Amino acid sequence: MSAKKLRVAVVGATGYTGAELVRLLLQHPRVELGSLVGHSAAGEPVTKVLPALAGVVGGAIATFDADAIAASVDAAFCALPHGASAPIVKQLRERGVIVFDLSADFRLRDLGVYSEWYGKHGAPELLPHAVYGLPELFREALKSADLIAVPGCYPTASALALIPLVHERLVDPESIVIDAKSGVSGAGRGLSPGTHFSETAEGIRPYKAGGAHRHTPEIEQTLSHVFGRSLRVVFTPHLIPMVRGILVTAYAKPASDVSVEAVRRIASVATRLYEGSPSVVVLDHGSLPDTSWVKGSNRAHVSYVFDERAHRVIAFCAIDNLVKGAAGQAVQCFNIRFGLSEGEGLLGTGIWP
Amino acid sequence: MSAKKLRVAVVGATGYTGAELVRLLLQHPRVELGSLVGHSAAGEPVTKVLPALAGVVGGAIATFDADAIAASVDAAFCALPHGASAPIVKQLRERGVIVFDLSADFRLRDLGVYSEWYGKHGAPELLPHAVYGLPELFREALKSADLIAVPGCYPTASALALIPLVHERLVDPESIVIDAKSGVSGAGRGLSPGTHFSETAEGIRPYKAGGAHRHTPEIEQTLSHVFGRSLRVVFTPHLIPMVRGILVTAYAKPASDVSVEAVRRIASVATRLYEGSPSVVVLDHGSLPDTSWVKGSNRAHVSYVFDERAHRVIAFCAIDNLVKGAAGQAVQCFNIRFGLSEGEGLLGTGIWP
Amino acid sequence: MSAKKLRVAVVGATGYTGAELVRLLLQHPRVELGSLVGHSAAGEPVTKVLPALAGVVGGAIATFDADAIAASVDAAFCALPHGASAPIVKQLRERGVIVFDLSADFRLRDLGVYSEWYGKHGAPELLPHAVYGLPELFREALKSADLIAVPGCYPTASALALIPLVHERLVDPESIVIDAKSGVSGAGRGLSPGTHFSETAEGIRPYKAGGAHRHTPEIEQTLSHVFGRSLRVVFTPHLIPMVRGILVTAYAKPASDVSVEAVRRIASVATRLYEGSPSVVVLDHGSLPDTSWVKGSNRAHVSYVFDERAHRVIAFCAIDNLVKGAAGQAVQCFNIRFGLSEGEGLLGTGIWP
Amino acid sequence: MSAKKLRVAVVGATGYTGAELVRLLLQHPRVELGSLVGHSAAGEPVTKVLPALAGVVGGAIATFDADAIAASVDAAFCALPHGASAPIVKQLRERGVIVFDLSADFRLRDLGVYSEWYGKHGAPELLPHAVYGLPELFREALKSADLIAVPGCYPTASALALIPLVHERLVDPESIVIDAKSGVSGAGRGLSPGTHFSETAEGIRPYKAGGAHRHTPEIEQTLSHVFGRSLRVVFTPHLIPMVRGILVTAYAKPASDVSVEAVRRIASVATRLYEGSPSVVVLDHGSLPDTSWVKGSNRAHVSYVFDERAHRVIAFCAIDNLVKGAAGQAVQCFNIRFGLSEGEGLLGTGIWP
Repeated sequence: MSAKKLRVAVVGATGYTGAELVRLLLQHPRVELGSLVGHSAAGEPVTKVLPALAGVVGGAIATFDADAIAASVDAAFCALPHGASAPIVKQLRERGVIVFDLSADFRLRDLGVYSEWYGKHGAPELLPHAVYGLPELFREALKSADLIAVPGCYPTASALALIPLVHERLVDPESIVIDAKSGVSGAGRGLSPGTHFSETAEGIRPYKAGGAHRHTPEIEQTLSHVFGRSLRVVFTPHLIPMVRGILVTAYAKPASDVSVEAVRRIASVATRLYEGSPSVVVLDHGSLPDTSWVKGSNRAHVSYVFDERAHRVIAFCAIDNLVKGAAGQAVQCFNIRFGLSEGEGLLGTGIWP
Repeated sequence: MSAKKLRVAVVGATGYTGAELVRLLLQHPRVELGSLVGHSAAGEPVTKVLPALAGVVGGAIATFDADAIAASVDAAFCALPHGASAPIVKQLRERGVIVFDLSADFRLRDLGVYSEWYGKHGAPELLPHAVYGLPELFREALKSADLIAVPGCYPTASALALIPLVHERLVDPESIVIDAKSGVSGAGRGLSPGTHFSETAEGIRPYKAGGAHRHTPEIEQTLSHVFGRSLRVVFTPHLIPMVRGILVTAYAKPASDVSVEAVRRIASVATRLYEGSPSVVVLDHGSLPDTSWVKGSNRAHVSYVFDERAHRVIAFCAIDNLVKGAAGQAVQCFNIRFGLSEGEGLLGTGIWP
Repeated sequence: MSAKKLRVAVVGATGYTGAELVRLLLQHPRVELGSLVGHSAAGEPVTKVLPALAGVVGGAIATFDADAIAASVDAAFCALPHGASAPIVKQLRERGVIVFDLSADFRLRDLGVYSEWYGKHGAPELLPHAVYGLPELFREALKSADLIAVPGCYPTASALALIPLVHERLVDPESIVIDAKSGVSGAGRGLSPGTHFSETAEGIRPYKAGGAHRHTPEIEQTLSHVFGRSLRVVFTPHLIPMVRGILVTAYAKPASDVSVEAVRRIASVATRLYEGSPSVVVLDHGSLPDTSWVKGSNRAHVSYVFDERAHRVIAFCAIDNLVKGAAGQAVQCFNIRFGLSEGEGLLGTGIWP
Repeated sequence: MSAKKLRVAVVGATGYTGAELVRLLLQHPRVELGSLVGHSAAGEPVTKVLPALAGVVGGAIATFDADAIAASVDAAFCALPHGASAPIVKQLRERGVIVFDLSADFRLRDLGVYSEWYGKHGAPELLPHAVYGLPELFREALKSADLIAVPGCYPTASALALIPLVHERLVDPESIVIDAKSGVSGAGRGLSPGTHFSETAEGIRPYKAGGAHRHTPEIEQTLSHVFGRSLRVVFTPHLIPMVRGILVTAYAKPASDVSVEAVRRIASVATRLYEGSPSVVVLDHGSLPDTSWVKGSNRAHVSYVFDERAHRVIAFCAIDNLVKGAAGQAVQCFNIRFGLSEGEGLLGTGIWP
């Protein structure tokens, strides 16, 4: 006899994150997929908007209806743009729906910081109730959270690489440089010259360099929390001609009071720290990550190199931006919240090659 | 209470088809994965050879041992090069192991044809016992087969596109032209100048044109079987700068005794013919397939266009060459052979984008 | 002492074809580049719209001014969308400017055919004066033409592959099937879901199949001209995840009165026919083309295979869609028109890898 | 009347750097291309080994013959692997041939450093006579050099980004981190799993991290020279799924005695410093480079961002690794050495898109 299934809705199902949620939820043994909600595509056949679902999911994209959702599901996943999400989340929370929000709207604890980077907040009264959905850091709090702010893709990869170094106080917190490389799906389904195939396929470029990317304060919030006091990071994102994947290469100086030996041991420290975290794999010494190894997977591959010549630690993390960097992490939080095994439906291997 | 699991081995686990078998078998609810067997990589840690399995599968690549396999599994999947496969299959069959062979060694019914295209056969006495593993055509025979010859990637896509046209005798069998386009993973994991990134990534090229590709007789065997007498096809494969996916574009003249109306109805005829075939989706009229919609999926997307100006039917089929074109189809045959639901563990949606 | 330079303008300089014209004209030893004209980008710095020109071309994109162009240049290249081009060309021709038009507006000789495929024509009175800019076929007429209709990319590759077969009456004209594959730059700089990186980079798809693509009548016009009476072709374009390149794979049945020997000799026939055509290279027997070998080059690589099993000739042609399929061919026509060597500034090798 | 042409040979013409030399030399107005020398492909038709040259260059790949080269050319370009190059260069120098060597063999001034990173040197007596071929730094010395060591690709991009910062002593020399991203052609034409299309096309990965890449001492040599005393850098290369292009993202802390204003002015300082360097373009403030803008071009696009939040300068440089990072830079040195205009034959725009 199989256990009762949990029913969920996906709001914003037609973007890349929404589509990835649908893929993961369909293969989740304890989930029954309820309505797929969209805005501009409402009323259209699901398979017209998401042709990969032909033969899998029928029906049409639904219009958002908070009452209908509240009446029919155990939880809702919201995959909407920041700003658009807060009012929707508010309606769902007012009706008691447990919400996993994949936008940026509830990630920053400090309303002032949110306002500075994103503008006016649509539901500031909910901020204190949101739990940041990085299970490796907030697993306990997630068990009883009703509003989960699923982290951004860059912040997830940056945090998983750097948490062990910062937590163990192995590095000088003033010295952190994060050079991040992302596949193009991170830019979403909206059209722009910067994601037009012919101008993207054969080049690499940085963007929003110099502390201009909105994921900067989110990364700093997490690392500051781990470190115990406020720190700042240099963060430079780059666009790579591939669809999925984020690689973070993070640099830091060993703290002045730390021995070379201690730094060399970082991989085993990280392994111990991530024990019990089924989505993080610390690679064997000498092995460097490749985003193609985690494509379609909810795993993060983490590794460390100590450059003894130049006295610098380099931390790497590779994830699939749409899975561990978005939809998969949301499902991981869902599993924790509903008392399922954390990796339920998530521990298959990625698609390689 | 869950049903007892079936135990399987993968022989040739370190190539792309083998790795894909591992991925699909790991997510199959009724399968327990036994040993992963390799030749050149025997003894190496699995995760060194297949880093995508880090955190998923431990242990080492095993050396082939027919007795050990016979003693421990319900079935074996062989993903070896043609020629190398026959003797291995022979040893397994002698020990009673049910074998799903993904090489070309048991696909051609006629030993003479095999010899002409591939050379001397390593186990000709087994040929009469092999069943061609295209479930859409040989579902019944597969239920009791002990040696299943899983079709090639091009033959699968070509057959699924053309079977309805040939079966209904809508087209002139002398007029069939198959223009096929494949992602590079179809060429396997072996290194060659033709699959070197820098000489492959920004171009497209035909290869083995003019009836020189070994999949030609396999395609002809299937269509001749459906048509009831021998026919020949023009078949031109092309290499496309993407990892996965095959698109077949097949052209044929309507048979002289067939009405325009009958040709126009081909999509609904195909839909009816593929009823009960969970891995084939006939797209809605006007919709043309895209290999990216079936990436990672065991589905074939089929569609038809009638060019009334030039009086020609065009049949399309898109598959993932490593799934429905290889590993997924093998698992589909396995499901049929062991009395499971045909789509068990296979009906998730592909990975998009 | 170097010869006097010819001064030219590029109207529509900010699209891909326009940008390619600028690249080729800048490296042309007998050309001086005059104004770069644009519409939506008029007034913007050239290097903002076309950053590859940083350090090469300064100034701003000019607004179209027929009088100013007429007063300052020897010729104008128009790289505008069909429909938009005709009125611009008309203004330039009224002022005596020799125009190389890269749109479809003056390619079809028959106004009725134009109307059927493109709608109302903006300058029908000019149609009789236009010369179709395929030098390999209309070299003589181009020497005195004042309005040159530069062919489309698919029609160029299709014609160069098939002209020898049709000219020598080696094939049944009712049997021609053209399966064409194009890089994404052929779709231009305008944004669309179909050229969005994440939905294009890992798949291949047909589009406008079944006689729906506007290049169909243009291909038929050329082949009918060569054959001496009207013929129709099946034409299926496909989108390939690469930026540049077109590969045409064309199939035809040998004519019933033609010997196998004659068909086998097609490559040497083609070589002879293209003697004096510096932009066409008939590959050695057994060699098949690869679009990466002609990337950035004005050359077409042509080759032939005779499938004796299935009795079909297969003709291949690879070009760079933006060079021999557009801008390069325009410059080639310009060279002919102004009495320069046909390959002046055009015979460098492509960029490989 | 055109000036007399200089005759040159290319030794190692069949690799990517060699092929690129052939492309650039063919389009150089003052060069006549002599023999193309290869080792493993000696005797084969040029167009079989380099099909992009079909219709452009005939004949066969020549065997190396120092006397024949000395008797027939003004200069030789050697594009051989390190280690293999030194003895060849020695033979040519003994016969008085001016040599542009693209290997690493003569780049490092210090024999001890060479031995440490590359092993035994094949012609140490020539080291003192070699001039490092970075024209932006050693233009004067190149005018009379007879052995030019053309810089590596990463060192070129790293130097052009960082020279202004180091030269002006704007940054703390202990703080330099270079995160570099390269297209796959940088790995050469030799086959390896790491450059196999299917394992490269959809992922990004670091390699030789932590001070293990041989370009590290070459970068340090140049920056130490500019700074006036020895410094070390952190250098991490990454492999990007594109054929050509290198992007360097370099991070440094402003020197403690430098004002914020001085750091903000870095772009104009760099512009002034690179005045008279036709191959370096400092982008306008706010514009970040994209490797696709310099593809096929000998230009470096450089830009700077000052992250005031985290107090770090970020320097960017994009080049085409095969042009400014190898063959184009060699031709630039050749121009300087033979008294031609530095940009002769090199200042065309790249190929975009």
